[in-house]
Amino acid sequence: SQGIALEEMGLSPPHPQPNFPLDGKAAVVEWDKRKIWRKFAENYYLFLGTPSRMWLDHVFATVFDLKKRLSPETADLYFDTINDALKTDAFRPRALFERFNIELISTTDGSVDPLEAHQKLHADGWGKKVIPCFRPDDAIDPDHENFRMTVAELGRQTNEGVATFDSYLRALRARRAYYKKMGATATDHGPPSAFTTILAKADIEKLFAKALSTGLTAVEAEYYRGHMLVEMARMSLDDGLVMQIHPGSYRNHNAKLFTMFGRDKGADIPRAVDYTSALRPLLNELGNEVSFRLIIFTLDETSYARELAPLAGHYPALKVGPAWWFHDSPEGMRRYREQITETAGFYNTVGFNDDTRAFLSIPARHDVCRRMDSGILAKWVCEHRMTEEEALNVARDLTYNLVKQNYNL
Amino acid sequence: SQGIALEEMGLSPPHPQPNFPLDGKAAVVEWDKRKIWRKFAENYYLFLGTPSRMWLDHVFATVFDLKKRLSPETADLYFDTINDALKTDAFRPRALFERFNIELISTTDGSVDPLEAHQKLHADGWGKKVIPCFRPDDAIDPDHENFRMTVAELGRQTNEGVATFDSYLRALRARRAYYKKMGATATDHGPPSAFTTILAKADIEKLFAKALSTGLTAVEAEYYRGHMLVEMARMSLDDGLVMQIHPGSYRNHNAKLFTMFGRDKGADIPRAVDYTSALRPLLNELGNEVSFRLIIFTLDETSYARELAPLAGHYPALKVGPAWWFHDSPEGMRRYREQITETAGFYNTVGFNDDTRAFLSIPARHDVCRRMDSGILAKWVCEHRMTEEEALNVARDLTYNLVKQNYNL
Amino acid sequence: SQGIALEEMGLSPPHPQPNFPLDGKAAVVEWDKRKIWRKFAENYYLFLGTPSRMWLDHVFATVFDLKKRLSPETADLYFDTINDALKTDAFRPRALFERFNIELISTTDGSVDPLEAHQKLHADGWGKKVIPCFRPDDAIDPDHENFRMTVAELGRQTNEGVATFDSYLRALRARRAYYKKMGATATDHGPPSAFTTILAKADIEKLFAKALSTGLTAVEAEYYRGHMLVEMARMSLDDGLVMQIHPGSYRNHNAKLFTMFGRDKGADIPRAVDYTSALRPLLNELGNEVSFRLIIFTLDETSYARELAPLAGHYPALKVGPAWWFHDSPEGMRRYREQITETAGFYNTVGFNDDTRAFLSIPARHDVCRRMDSGILAKWVCEHRMTEEEALNVARDLTYNLVKQNYNL
Repeated sequence: SQGIALEEMGLSPPHPQPNFPLDGKAAVVEWDKRKIWRKFAENYYLFLGTPSRMWLDHVFATVFDLKKRLSPETADLYFDTINDALKTDAFRPRALFERFNIELISTTDGSVDPLEAHQKLHADGWGKKVIPCFRPDDAIDPDHENFRMTVAELGRQTNEGVATFDSYLRALRARRAYYKKMGATATDHGPPSAFTTILAKADIEKLFAKALSTGLTAVEAEYYRGHMLVEMARMSLDDGLVMQIHPGSYRNHNAKLFTMFGRDKGADIPRAVDYTSALRPLLNELGNEVSFRLIIFTLDETSYARELAPLAGHYPALKVGPAWWFHDSPEGMRRYREQITETAGFYNTVGFNDDTRAFLSIPARHDVCRRMDSGILAKWVCEHRMTEEEALNVARDLTYNLVKQNYNL
Repeated sequence: SQGIALEEMGLSPPHPQPNFPLDGKAAVVEWDKRKIWRKFAENYYLFLGTPSRMWLDHVFATVFDLKKRLSPETADLYFDTINDALKTDAFRPRALFERFNIELISTTDGSVDPLEAHQKLHADGWGKKVIPCFRPDDAIDPDHENFRMTVAELGRQTNEGVATFDSYLRALRARRAYYKKMGATATDHGPPSAFTTILAKADIEKLFAKALSTGLTAVEAEYYRGHMLVEMARMSLDDGLVMQIHPGSYRNHNAKLFTMFGRDKGADIPRAVDYTSALRPLLNELGNEVSFRLIIFTLDETSYARELAPLAGHYPALKVGPAWWFHDSPEGMRRYREQITETAGFYNTVGFNDDTRAFLSIPARHDVCRRMDSGILAKWVCEHRMTEEEALNVARDLTYNLVKQNYNL
Repeated sequence: SQGIALEEMGLSPPHPQPNFPLDGKAAVVEWDKRKIWRKFAENYYLFLGTPSRMWLDHVFATVFDLKKRLSPETADLYFDTINDALKTDAFRPRALFERFNIELISTTDGSVDPLEAHQKLHADGWGKKVIPCFRPDDAIDPDHENFRMTVAELGRQTNEGVATFDSYLRALRARRAYYKKMGATATDHGPPSAFTTILAKADIEKLFAKALSTGLTAVEAEYYRGHMLVEMARMSLDDGLVMQIHPGSYRNHNAKLFTMFGRDKGADIPRAVDYTSALRPLLNELGNEVSFRLIIFTLDETSYARELAPLAGHYPALKVGPAWWFHDSPEGMRRYREQITETAGFYNTVGFNDDTRAFLSIPARHDVCRRMDSGILAKWVCEHRMTEEEALNVARDLTYNLVKQNYNL
């Protein structure tokens, strides 16, 4: 956002475009990691006030025992200290897992992932500590760039084929069963909206066939996704996998960046999301089921008090996931508790989980959440809105008990 | 929301559905009130952090003089204490009315209510203390399940008939006059949206006839409601009844619950509401009239600073009602003042009124609002944003003067 | 908003409507300025809690050295003190400019303004202190009441004519060049929405011709504006003028007031605005350009954390403007920092600028912002989220450095 090209930070575009130089100059990929680190240190002040800054400071201080702040002056000290540490056995992932006192991590895996790493973890006795999560966006969103390939692979892997919509559903069930066998307790869904619908059998069959042949229009794709979310919910009722939905991100917003560097390069931008009308078909079929669990995450904070807390305060199946992504931050967490609690209480939320891809930042992220939740509880104790004993119970529930309970751990 | 069936809490569905057992088990209605109360006490911790909890604690402590907190251990003590108290004369409604130092309560009454209770209150000299409020949703919303029945009854009661749209308007005017005679100073409207419109006479006449014969489409019904809100505003300009609109609730969101237990069982969920465009036709006709008063309540807090405060800060007719329903809570009230005051000041709001159906909770609800408003005023005094004297004046206006003034009391 | 007619405050409608008396009484224009001032003083308490009140108190105390608060009792003292002061040389605009320690003011000027005042300022050596800003709404929004007149004048002034869309673009470029020559560093755009689009050449040419002949439909006008915003952005890339967009106001909401008194009488009401989808066409063409600068202001605070901070945290060209208009207030500024900083940091914002038309209030407005930002920084220092030294650096950047840097000053 400050005009430093990704190439300057060492990212090499897999698909460089000859006609996309920034400002007329083709960017040169920097390979010298120490130089890249120095540039990062020079610009570290830009992160002030952001949670990224807070997590990094926490990691530097607590994981690497660095006592001075990162700055142009300390850049080399940091570079060397971190590199030296990473070479030691104490910094192997499993050693850090123990050091961080982590009980369980879940990966997120596309619907046709063979889960080989998880097989190895099982063989090593780590199968209960690192579990997979079934994320079938690539198999149920016709707009996903790998949709057809994934559906074909789905039929192949499960020996169900995907000649009919029914065989496709059977293949999805088979994959879910495999993930469950490998330790999964949940599924994860990232549709562009929260739209759900229940189509007549003939209609969804027609859409399925069309999606695999000529492709769907934008509206048809939305109906397809909306119906498939309900199918996923039905399967969850049967197999007990907790269903997580986190809608509302406009993925790959920056077309040029996407063309050059591909997905997931930071250009996903939230949008306003309706839940009240959108989730009604799914909730009307399954929201009253106490053995179905649906956890909703949102990027649109306006829905906390207006829609999600009232929905979670009513439907037994529905819980609100923690403040997430852009809102997984001190102020964001405060807004979350202040806007959710009064209508949904604490016990229609699921405790904290982070979705970091930065392994070293896990303690920092949980530390931030515990501090923020504790701060709010302390304030409410001081205002005589609860007793200290009650607050301590809630604190334990938010950090540990609610998580285990809601994710069937 | 925690999976305890309404039947377990003693609710007996008037329309049980043989094919709607929760999780495959038909729920059994619990009739033993002491057992129900014990279950409530066991689960009382679930309410932590909610205003319901705060109101209940306040009622237990101040109305029933219970000194220990409600818990499984104190459940029987509570049950017996409350039952004993309720048998005494001191706990008769009128005695509590005096004890609570209430000056006035308004009921809310459908458009063809004979107001028999109010006739009795008048006969007893209580006619100035408990007044009705005209709520004609059942007569002006074609989607209301009793619409046709109510319209027919309207014509019968008023001897106007409802053969034409004009006679229907005359019948509505006659009912308003009756409510006013019985003490009403206000009307109350709960449309799904804030949409208003002014249709040509021929068009609304056509819609009226169609609504009573074959019925309206969803879009026609919205236009009908939008036009009728303007008709209600016109009548308010004439008869001086203050008009209250509180749009934006998706009523009876849980279809199965509605089928089994009927309306108003806690399954009304808010939605995003547009006011700026939606109210413009009504405000363009009547917003400049100083003798018309329109009070808007919202369930969509995003409209506080963006739409309602600017509208109330401009149109003489328009005032913003207090934080309401899901937002009638400590944090909700703080958000209300912080987001409304800077554009609309205090004097385009109407003080606090609660809409509780729990008579015993009235003092608690006003207590919460007074504490929150006082807290904000105190903060602003400390920040030198007003003097202590000014804050004390505002405090009195918010609790008493603005209410009387804006509701013509 | 409190039912005092504009006429009572001395406003004389340029276009009085015989059939628009407020409440049946034709309002009488009050000409006695002292009487008007007394009425203002009597009603001054109504402003309690608003920033208007805060700015006025600040101006009275610091600019006019008035020690007692404005009230009915001090109304005459204020009236006389202010009038006496305004007659002195010390209260001439340029003297106050120096006294207020202002470095630079920008005016906002329609697209065919001859900028005569700026020519005089240049002649007096004030050309670097008071600069123009190019605001072409009247030339690029077909719904602007002066659109055709302005476009014709544009062609005349620049000798380009406006026979074709290309000549119209050349004329706009010529006007921008003239503003730049007169000191402008920025343009300013106030469209009803943030919608942008890139039309095929033949399509925009057709719309241009139709806009000048039979006029456009509402949808066509939106496409026209959306395309023209992209054209303006392209011109900014070429000529270096910083582009400011502040969408989302429903202008002249009160039709009767507009008919009687004309534009800009306080009846502009914000609406919900989508940025994520709306700005994508513009950002996809120009958002990655480090030499293009786009500053977005919003009246819809829900977009801070959800859309604007994520967009500004990604696109090099995009920055978020300060809390504006209805939100240029203590609580509004707090919400701004709390919702923007965590995703966009401080360095994707542009420091504070106010858009007051009340010259005397400039120090007050900056004072409020500095206090609020300092308060937030102090809080974050106390919470160990930054060091005191870092906070002091940020404070200087927010008040001075970021402004100069982002507006090319």
